[in-house]
Amino acid sequence: MSNVHEQAEVLENALRESDEFKALKISFELVMNDAESKELFEQFRSTQMNLQQKQMQGEELSEEDVEQAREVVEKVQAHEDISKLMESEQRVSTLINEISEVFTRPIEQLYQTEEE
Amino acid sequence: MSNVHEQAEVLENALRESDEFKALKISFELVMNDAESKELFEQFRSTQMNLQQKQMQGEELSEEDVEQAREVVEKVQAHEDISKLMESEQRVSTLINEISEVFTRPIEQLYQTEEE
Repeated sequence: MSNVHEQAEVLENALRESDEFKALKISFELVMNDAESKELFEQFRSTQMNLQQKQMQGEELSEEDVEQAREVVEKVQAHEDISKLMESEQRVSTLINEISEVFTRPIEQLYQTEEE
Repeated sequence: MSNVHEQAEVLENALRESDEFKALKISFELVMNDAESKELFEQFRSTQMNLQQKQMQGEELSEEDVEQAREVVEKVQAHEDISKLMESEQRVSTLINEISEVFTRPIEQLYQTEEE
């Protein structure tokens, strides 16, 4: 295995041991272990995916789509465990963006030299 | 600095020392140090960005756009140093995708448990 791939695995373990990922795991399991929370969270995700798909295909959203999405978002925001899960997801997503910015700096820097 | 951020920097250095990145650097500098190659490469990149922007904004491409893009691509493909640079870019891009897949596995695995 190349050094890059080895270091990617070391980073994988660091991510797995990070506070952000551990918090996500706890929040996720809390939601998944409760049938009602799980159903609402899955409903929220499928509603979101449905909207995204329609937007990507350039389809117009119907009033029903928008109303349904609004309702699910309201329920999810009022649900303590799911709100926490979404905050945890946001924090892990920020961390991943930070990691990606750091390890791709060599490329960023190479392409910048040309513009100076 | 958190362990994750530290490991991201270690990975950054591994990427900088990788064969893929070193080859990209050489190809890039070869193109940039020749005025004619540099101009053609920049023309190619601005043509691509222009097309992407139009597509993202849902604008239709004119016959002129398509013809211009076709011409630049042809010139670039016939240009040895630029072709090599594009191959090097492709290899680094593949490596970055591999790295991203590896270090985000904890999240992938967490969300999979639910579907099993």
